[in-house]
Amino acid sequence: MKHDRILLAHGSGGKLSQQLVQDIFLKAFDNELLAPLNDQAVFSLAASRHAFTTDSFVVKPIFFPGGDIGKLAVCGTINDLAVGGAEPLYLSASFIIEEGTAVEDLRQVVESMARTAKDAGVPIVTGDTKVVERGKGDGIFINTAGIGVISNGHNLSPLTIRPGDAIIVSGAMGDHGITIMAHRDGLQMDVPVESDCAPLHGLVKVVLAESNGVRAMRDPTRGGLATTLNELAASGGSGMLIREDDIPIRDAVRGACEIMGFDPLYLANEGKLIAIVSPDSAQPVLAAMKSHPLGRDAAVIGKVMEAPKGKVLLETSLGVTRILDMLAGEQFPRIC
Amino acid sequence: MKHDRILLAHGSGGKLSQQLVQDIFLKAFDNELLAPLNDQAVFSLAASRHAFTTDSFVVKPIFFPGGDIGKLAVCGTINDLAVGGAEPLYLSASFIIEEGTAVEDLRQVVESMARTAKDAGVPIVTGDTKVVERGKGDGIFINTAGIGVISNGHNLSPLTIRPGDAIIVSGAMGDHGITIMAHRDGLQMDVPVESDCAPLHGLVKVVLAESNGVRAMRDPTRGGLATTLNELAASGGSGMLIREDDIPIRDAVRGACEIMGFDPLYLANEGKLIAIVSPDSAQPVLAAMKSHPLGRDAAVIGKVMEAPKGKVLLETSLGVTRILDMLAGEQFPRIC
Repeated sequence: MKHDRILLAHGSGGKLSQQLVQDIFLKAFDNELLAPLNDQAVFSLAASRHAFTTDSFVVKPIFFPGGDIGKLAVCGTINDLAVGGAEPLYLSASFIIEEGTAVEDLRQVVESMARTAKDAGVPIVTGDTKVVERGKGDGIFINTAGIGVISNGHNLSPLTIRPGDAIIVSGAMGDHGITIMAHRDGLQMDVPVESDCAPLHGLVKVVLAESNGVRAMRDPTRGGLATTLNELAASGGSGMLIREDDIPIRDAVRGACEIMGFDPLYLANEGKLIAIVSPDSAQPVLAAMKSHPLGRDAAVIGKVMEAPKGKVLLETSLGVTRILDMLAGEQFPRIC
Repeated sequence: MKHDRILLAHGSGGKLSQQLVQDIFLKAFDNELLAPLNDQAVFSLAASRHAFTTDSFVVKPIFFPGGDIGKLAVCGTINDLAVGGAEPLYLSASFIIEEGTAVEDLRQVVESMARTAKDAGVPIVTGDTKVVERGKGDGIFINTAGIGVISNGHNLSPLTIRPGDAIIVSGAMGDHGITIMAHRDGLQMDVPVESDCAPLHGLVKVVLAESNGVRAMRDPTRGGLATTLNELAASGGSGMLIREDDIPIRDAVRGACEIMGFDPLYLANEGKLIAIVSPDSAQPVLAAMKSHPLGRDAAVIGKVMEAPKGKVLLETSLGVTRILDMLAGEQFPRIC
């Protein structure tokens, strides 16, 4: 690259755009489907059910302990496919870059995306870049879309959730959210916490191979565990009861939440799974999760109830039961 | 919607996000695949070659004569699939909205997307919304990704281009680019020009049904005809010669270009096709294009040459032949 900073001309579609694609994107993402640099990637798909998803990422700051916006963009879309029971096949990546962004920052983000995608076995096969004027964006925004194949016999849907089903989480809640908020505020933690940002398709595969009793899965990102369970309860038309004492939360996260005034149940996670499973699948699924590096701290945290329909109840450490509502207002802008 | 302006909380993943999705997106895009509001859309695909593409749109202003950022976002991704010979099947839509954006503007953009997608027969089946603080974005940015199926026997690729092939454009060059630039500068044109923004999959279908001699197609967007032909010449390893007098350009566009100091061959188009076809396919493809409403002004503008390899030559109205380079620098920021 001849320039240290991104210029508007890098988004023109002309010579500098080509240079950017060649020097930064093509080099990092390097795969046969991307290489022809056509306006589209072409591949063969087998006849099957497929899943399609998209997410834009605007996390601030773009680098944080445990990850960066690039890693997050790859993991986030892989996870949205995985929780639907799909095996991720291909990703797209599209960038909106603010004029003046350091090319070195972009390179690091792109290399992180490439590494994450390679480790996950999901290539980035098509993309786009736009540049906006200084002050009309904020560094780097990334959109990823993904295609996955649903080749197992599972029919995951909140509509299959039944009273008595177990609610399982794959690990500690709130790591990503508190990491971003603390890093932004310059809060030093005694025990440093990192974002849990990770691709979940391996963990999902282990779970689905173990049990036919999985009703639905979600990754509790924006809005956290509380909001995601509320969505599942509303879609499934049943109630839920979770026990505060059974929800895994790191001491450091709990401490930072107390200092900063946050509730960890509303904090975003980027490498955690919620699974609603039939009563007799609870123990096998829990064991399967614990056998996977990303599910070591998995726990059964509650169960599905007949009533109150569409609501989530929290039994607190003090033995009081209260309604756990979904996130209202905006405590956590640009968390992902 | 309770609010007139987009708040950060509309991007939180909580209650206001849900309201935004229900009131604006779900109502407009209304289809069975989107309705479950899962993290992914699930559908069956037949065994076949498929195409996958993505584009982000940052056009400024978001409303312009002949279209808006929403229409552009749907057409742009449909066109990237179509020029690869794919029939567009499904779209995703992801929004990055600046805090303070008028909800009414968002609604109009989304309704325009919905109308364009419906008319094109390509549903928007999955999506995402993020909100960034005032001054960290610019109104509305949209990403669309798309999946298409390549069910015909065509093998479109610049690698199949041969000397003697004809170069055809489907209509007048520069309408979109000059519309945006003139609108931005407040230039009043005697004969108003509109963006040509349109979905090209119908036109492509007619062309591919007519002829097996189509080598490659492109839509000359950012960087215009000159840049797109340079890309095709470079990928195909051949030269190209086009004749200035044969390139359709509206008088109003030519006039505005003279006033504003632009070359119409570098202006973006959003509803035009370039097709490189075998010599004996030139007339049938031209006739097929002219039979379609979006190809009425189609013209053969030149041919592929042995040499100079990877270069595009322009025979000017004065009879001089000169090299037509790809766009350098940035004359046209945020044209799409």
